[in-house]
Amino acid sequence: MSFEYTLKKKSKDTKARLGELSTPHGNIETPIFMPVGTKATVKTMTPDELEDINAQIILSNTYHLYLRPGHDLIEEAGGLHKFMNWDKPILTDSGGFQVFSLSDMNNITEEGVEFKSHIDGSKHFISPEKSIEIQTALGSDIMMAFDECPPYPADRDYVKKSLEMTTRWLERCIDAKTRDDQALFGIMQGGMYKDLREESAKQIVEFDLPGYAIGGLSVGEPKELMMEVLDYAPDLLPENKPRYLMGVGTPFDLFEGVMRGVDMFDCVFPTRVARNGLVFTSEGRVTVRNATYSRDFTPLDHNCDCYVCQNYTRGYIRHLLKQNEILGVRLTTYHNLHFLLEMMENIRNAIAEDRFLEYREEFYKSYGLEVD
Amino acid sequence: MSFEYTLKKKSKDTKARLGELSTPHGNIETPIFMPVGTKATVKTMTPDELEDINAQIILSNTYHLYLRPGHDLIEEAGGLHKFMNWDKPILTDSGGFQVFSLSDMNNITEEGVEFKSHIDGSKHFISPEKSIEIQTALGSDIMMAFDECPPYPADRDYVKKSLEMTTRWLERCIDAKTRDDQALFGIMQGGMYKDLREESAKQIVEFDLPGYAIGGLSVGEPKELMMEVLDYAPDLLPENKPRYLMGVGTPFDLFEGVMRGVDMFDCVFPTRVARNGLVFTSEGRVTVRNATYSRDFTPLDHNCDCYVCQNYTRGYIRHLLKQNEILGVRLTTYHNLHFLLEMMENIRNAIAEDRFLEYREEFYKSYGLEVD
Ligand SMILES: [Zn+2]
Ligand SMILES: [Zn+2]
Repeated sequence: MSFEYTLKKKSKDTKARLGELSTPHGNIETPIFMPVGTKATVKTMTPDELEDINAQIILSNTYHLYLRPGHDLIEEAGGLHKFMNWDKPILTDSGGFQVFSLSDMNNITEEGVEFKSHIDGSKHFISPEKSIEIQTALGSDIMMAFDECPPYPADRDYVKKSLEMTTRWLERCIDAKTRDDQALFGIMQGGMYKDLREESAKQIVEFDLPGYAIGGLSVGEPKELMMEVLDYAPDLLPENKPRYLMGVGTPFDLFEGVMRGVDMFDCVFPTRVARNGLVFTSEGRVTVRNATYSRDFTPLDHNCDCYVCQNYTRGYIRHLLKQNEILGVRLTTYHNLHFLLEMMENIRNAIAEDRFLEYREEFYKSYGLEVD
Repeated sequence: MSFEYTLKKKSKDTKARLGELSTPHGNIETPIFMPVGTKATVKTMTPDELEDINAQIILSNTYHLYLRPGHDLIEEAGGLHKFMNWDKPILTDSGGFQVFSLSDMNNITEEGVEFKSHIDGSKHFISPEKSIEIQTALGSDIMMAFDECPPYPADRDYVKKSLEMTTRWLERCIDAKTRDDQALFGIMQGGMYKDLREESAKQIVEFDLPGYAIGGLSVGEPKELMMEVLDYAPDLLPENKPRYLMGVGTPFDLFEGVMRGVDMFDCVFPTRVARNGLVFTSEGRVTVRNATYSRDFTPLDHNCDCYVCQNYTRGYIRHLLKQNEILGVRLTTYHNLHFLLEMMENIRNAIAEDRFLEYREEFYKSYGLEVD
C-alpha cells in the first residue's frame, strides 16, 4: 500500500532509525537525502544520471513551477513526473518558504499570502487551497502543507500566533486534497521555542498524516541553536511516521540529523556549491576552482568510484570551471550528489549493523570535522 | 598503418566518395562531420555522450588551448586525449584562424604572427614552428599547418602573396614536426580566385602530405561564391588523400560539400545554435525556444531515435531553455550533433548504395531546402 512507513530498525546507541516509505512511484529507503530539482530539473543532471547515483526521490518547488512554466502546463503534459521524465518519487514543497523568502513583497493574512513575483513583479495569491491545487496538478507523490515559516529571530508571540495559523492552514490543506495517490505531510513550526515546538507538534500530529516535517530551521539561526532544537524536535513526532528536516544538507547536518531521529533531508547546498567549484571529498571539502589544483591530475576524491572520479581529474575540471564550460559544473554536481547519496547509503548500512557512531566518527575524522 | 586513407568507393553520378582514414586512435569513416571541442570539451557533452552518438573524431582549437590552460599543462596531463578523457581521434587546428579573427591586434610577418590575447590583452607570437610545438604537446592525431586565412573580400595581389607565404609556412611546419604518431595536413588557400587556388594546391600537394584542407571559405563570402569555389577546389587535391573543408557545417553545406568530393567537415554551428534553442529536425529547423512550442509535448524531431527525442518533449526543453537551465542546452546540443552525425552516416550508406542524389533530394524536400 502506498505511503506506508515501515520502521525497520532503531539504532541502539542513538536515535538514528532505518525505515522504508512506500509511494506510488516506488519505495524510499530512509534516512535519505533528496536532491533538489527546483524548476523541474536537478540543475545540470539528467534523470538517468540521478538514477546512476541511486537518487531515490527528488524535491521540486511549487513556487517556481507555479510561476514558470505554470502548473496548468505541467498538468497538461501529464504531470511533473512525465514532464521531466522522472518516474521515481517526487516531493513538492508548498511554496510557502519561497513566497516569504524570494518574492518582492508579501502580505500574510489568515486567508493566505499575497505576493509579487520575483521574476516580473506580477501579483499573485497563494492560499492553502491554492498550494494544494498546484501540487495536485503537479502530481507529486508527497505534497507539503502550506505553512508560514517565521524568520529568525522572531519573538515568541509572533511565532505562537504563526504556528497556530499554520495548523489552521494544515486543516484547510487536508480538506483541499483530492487525490489518493498523493500524500500530504504536515509541518511543525515553533521557531526556537521548545514549548511552541511541542504545541505545534501536538496540533499537527492529531491529523494522523503519513509524514511530518520539521520546518523553520536553517533560517539563519546559529548552528548550535539549530542543534538544540533538533535535540528534541524529532521526538515530538510519531515514531511510526517519517520525519523530514527541511532545507538542511551539509554532511555534518545529515549525520547530526540522522543521529537525532530524522529520516529525510533536502538542500540545494551540494548542487549550489558544486557550481561554485567546491566539492565534497572523503578528505574534506576541496575548492577545485583554486589555482592550486591546476596541475593536479588526480580525481576530485581519491576514494570515490563515481563516474566523474573514474574519468576526470581536478586539473581538467578546474580548467572547465575557469572557462565557464558547462561540463565543469556537470561533473562537480554529479560528484557532490553521488558523494551525499553514497554517504547516506553508508549511514543506512551503519545503522543496520549497529555501528552508526563508529561510522560517524570515522567519517568526521577523515572529513576534518570535530567529533564531540 | 596510421594515416592511411583508403578510397573505398566513388559515387557514380557525383563526386561524392566513401573512404576510411586510419589514425593511432582508431579509424574514421568518411565523409564525416567533426564536432568542435574548442576548449578541450565539446560544449555541454561528455566524451561518453559523444561516443553514444557515434562521433568518430573531434576537433580542438590550438589558439584557445595555448592561452588556457596552456599546452604545457596539457602535455603534463599526458596530452589532450588523456586530459579530456577522449580516446578516439582528435584533429587540432593551427591557431592561425583564431589569431586573425579573435585576437585584439595582430601583426603578420614572414616569421609569424604577433597578437594580443582576446582574454587579457597579453602579447604572444605564433610562428609555424610554435604552432607545431603546441600541437605536438597536445598530441592530436591530425595537426593542421599554420596558414594565413585572408579575409573576404581580399584583392588578388594580397591573396597571391598570402598563399605563397602559407606554402613557405607549410614547409616550416613539416620541418618542425617531430612525432610519427601525428599527421600534418596542409591547407589550400587562394581566396575566391580559381587560378590562385590552383597555384596553392599545386604548391602544397608537392609535399605529399597524408591529407589536405580547403581553407579560406565560409569567411563571409556569399553562399554562391563558396559553392563556385567548391565546384573545382576539391578536384585540385589528390584523389588518394582525405580532403577537409574547414569551418563548414550546416546540413546543406555538408551535402553540397560531399557531392563535390569533400571528406571531412567541422563547424561550431550545430552546437552554437543548439545553445540558442534552434534544433535541426527531419522536417527542417525548429526554434524550440519559441512560445509556440510551450505546450508541444512531442519530441524535438518526430523521426529521431536519439536519447533526447526518446525521453523529452519540446515543451519541457523550451521551459529549460527559457529558465537558463543547463539541461536545456545539453539536450539541444546532444540532439543536433546526433542529427548531423546520423545524417553523415546516411550519406555514407547512400554513397555505398549508389543513391546519394536520391537521398539528398529526399532530405532536402523533407528539410525544406531547394533541390537544384
Ligand atoms: Zn566522485
Ligand atoms: Zn533527437
